[in-house]
Amino acid sequence: MFENCFDRLRQRSALVHNITNYVTVNDVANIILACGASPIMADEPEEAAEITAICTGLNINIGTLNQRTISSMFAAGKQAKALNHPVLLDPVGAGASTLRTDTARRIVDEIHPDVIRGNISEIKTLAQGSGTTQGVDADIADAVTEENLDDSIAFVKSFASSCGCIVAVTGAIDLVSDGDRCYVIRNGRPEMGRITGTGCQLSGMMTAFIASNPDNMLDAAAAAVSAMGLAGEIGWSHMQASDGNSTYRNRIIDAICNMTGTELKKGARYELR
Amino acid sequence: MFENCFDRLRQRSALVHNITNYVTVNDVANIILACGASPIMADEPEEAAEITAICTGLNINIGTLNQRTISSMFAAGKQAKALNHPVLLDPVGAGASTLRTDTARRIVDEIHPDVIRGNISEIKTLAQGSGTTQGVDADIADAVTEENLDDSIAFVKSFASSCGCIVAVTGAIDLVSDGDRCYVIRNGRPEMGRITGTGCQLSGMMTAFIASNPDNMLDAAAAAVSAMGLAGEIGWSHMQASDGNSTYRNRIIDAICNMTGTELKKGARYELR
Amino acid sequence: MFENCFDRLRQRSALVHNITNYVTVNDVANIILACGASPIMADEPEEAAEITAICTGLNINIGTLNQRTISSMFAAGKQAKALNHPVLLDPVGAGASTLRTDTARRIVDEIHPDVIRGNISEIKTLAQGSGTTQGVDADIADAVTEENLDDSIAFVKSFASSCGCIVAVTGAIDLVSDGDRCYVIRNGRPEMGRITGTGCQLSGMMTAFIASNPDNMLDAAAAAVSAMGLAGEIGWSHMQASDGNSTYRNRIIDAICNMTGTELKKGARYELR
Repeated sequence: MFENCFDRLRQRSALVHNITNYVTVNDVANIILACGASPIMADEPEEAAEITAICTGLNINIGTLNQRTISSMFAAGKQAKALNHPVLLDPVGAGASTLRTDTARRIVDEIHPDVIRGNISEIKTLAQGSGTTQGVDADIADAVTEENLDDSIAFVKSFASSCGCIVAVTGAIDLVSDGDRCYVIRNGRPEMGRITGTGCQLSGMMTAFIASNPDNMLDAAAAAVSAMGLAGEIGWSHMQASDGNSTYRNRIIDAICNMTGTELKKGARYELR
Repeated sequence: MFENCFDRLRQRSALVHNITNYVTVNDVANIILACGASPIMADEPEEAAEITAICTGLNINIGTLNQRTISSMFAAGKQAKALNHPVLLDPVGAGASTLRTDTARRIVDEIHPDVIRGNISEIKTLAQGSGTTQGVDADIADAVTEENLDDSIAFVKSFASSCGCIVAVTGAIDLVSDGDRCYVIRNGRPEMGRITGTGCQLSGMMTAFIASNPDNMLDAAAAAVSAMGLAGEIGWSHMQASDGNSTYRNRIIDAICNMTGTELKKGARYELR
Repeated sequence: MFENCFDRLRQRSALVHNITNYVTVNDVANIILACGASPIMADEPEEAAEITAICTGLNINIGTLNQRTISSMFAAGKQAKALNHPVLLDPVGAGASTLRTDTARRIVDEIHPDVIRGNISEIKTLAQGSGTTQGVDADIADAVTEENLDDSIAFVKSFASSCGCIVAVTGAIDLVSDGDRCYVIRNGRPEMGRITGTGCQLSGMMTAFIASNPDNMLDAAAAAVSAMGLAGEIGWSHMQASDGNSTYRNRIIDAICNMTGTELKKGARYELR
């Protein structure tokens, strides 16, 4: 299934519109190219809807939001939905400021994204107003663990149901659910947390996956999560003694660039609950 | 000729003002440093003209334009022309939105850049309103090929004549013309298209080339195109099995950093038509 | 002393608020993660003070300032001081435009940063209005050398005294003073000047150092300078023949990622004057 999703992504050269933060935008563009799609970044309200219209998916990331880009998120989001393009929301730092929390909630309520992808604290903030956030990183107290896995799955399913969309919570254990089924994915490495923007990169690539597999978005979103984690594992296997987080960043994007559907199928570690 | 242009660039430490997109800006800064010049990025209207005045060249890239940065492009562009500083326009995504197409056209008409550098779809949009664009990438239907080379050269010469500037169209085959002569350049590798921003990087470096060779801008612009392509070839020769587009990006900038005028002379593959 | 400062930084996972330029922001985020802290970037006035409140340090970098981000600098700066969070100012390009010079001076006068870190031309501009700046790089005529070292130390001490803060001037020889004592640091390599943003990276990491050592900011600021220079030396020792400035950038951040307090102690080269 993941293999098919990835192969379709490689074939379709989807054009993905990104309204994203300026911290990690270059890596987001490069990983979208690495996985076989094409990125375009545009966040001026005057052109946002028009740019979305020539694309097949929209990635909204609130990482360094401002009033101008918020306007663009809504303009592009409404246009994308009107055209039936898959829309992903990455609620970066929801919980860290009122503006971020409110903007993320308004996007959920007014745009109805097809997928929400965030860390557990961001998702809890959206679901319950109760996540404690460490800036743009999840609070350790919120983490999905083997011990709280059943409860975590139930939480993610319930939030996905109430939103009517797919919810992807990423961390040491990743959960991806449409409210009915829930993928539990165990790819990845803890060292990925020392690179800025692996979450943003995943959101960009996931948008490419769902834009290329619009009839099968749950599997496509889960495939993206698994591919990112597997790239973290492959990238790590090539690390030299003197390499650190900056080189690791390159190796992960490189691993996506070289990955095939067959390798993803072999390397994916998940169960369906 | 290319050798002289490059050697002069290395000697002069030109300061280049860039009003450019936030996607590829870091790579643009690093390649400008790699080739021997210095970058400064500034896009606030209040300082744009003043920053341009202390520089010797201006690179206008409309990649993630907004109303604020558009104002800066015109303020800086007018100042640069008043001071006789070479000005380059990179019309990123012209054809993808009305705002981009109109802004690029207005810059051509009102600023009269010395060089316009873009992909074939962007240049066709500016010349004829007829380019079909795939976001920020050229449409394959527009591509310059060996089959349509004569027509393509005639088109680029004609557009350069009508604008009264140098036009550089880059792709598998690159064309650089001042309306009279046309360089046909065959350096580069197809894999460069999987890195975000090789075009933006070339525009930044080309601005450094023309700022350092203001009396010889056609040769300087062609030398920049050839150097970028050669760096793509050299960078590729150092790729390991597990390397992908993120590492390739670094290797290309590294290759510019280590390149000499003599190596450029040896590696350049071009004809003059 | 440097060792203790670094070990404390590694233990505390400080959250650092950065209002910084979009040129080097990704490298700033990665080096803050590499040294053991966490970055958050936020420059919208509506959330700036609220984001600062959840952090423990504030890094203000005026590299690509605009009217919106200037408002955020003041909102966040005032909040940070009210909460006793260490605040660092990096006056990028002070001297290159009236807006930059005036903004940097106003931040010094109205926010009273705990540390000002810049190149010698930027610091001279702030102190005397007399620095000649080469865009965002120091003018060679201003450089701190062995010949003018006594005068340079006296200048930095005097400026630090008059501001009532720590002043860090970085270049071939680095000076860090609180007005009373002055660290003279001789780590680093000249090739670091061919990478964009080593200064910005240092400012981000220095904010993490002072946020983690608020009772000992002079030593912490000097430790950051020494660590950055040492990382430049270590990174250089791993360079291959075909590597250039883009790869060097990665190797420096990697070296910070792998550095221990003990290694910093061994590698630091400084005297106290």
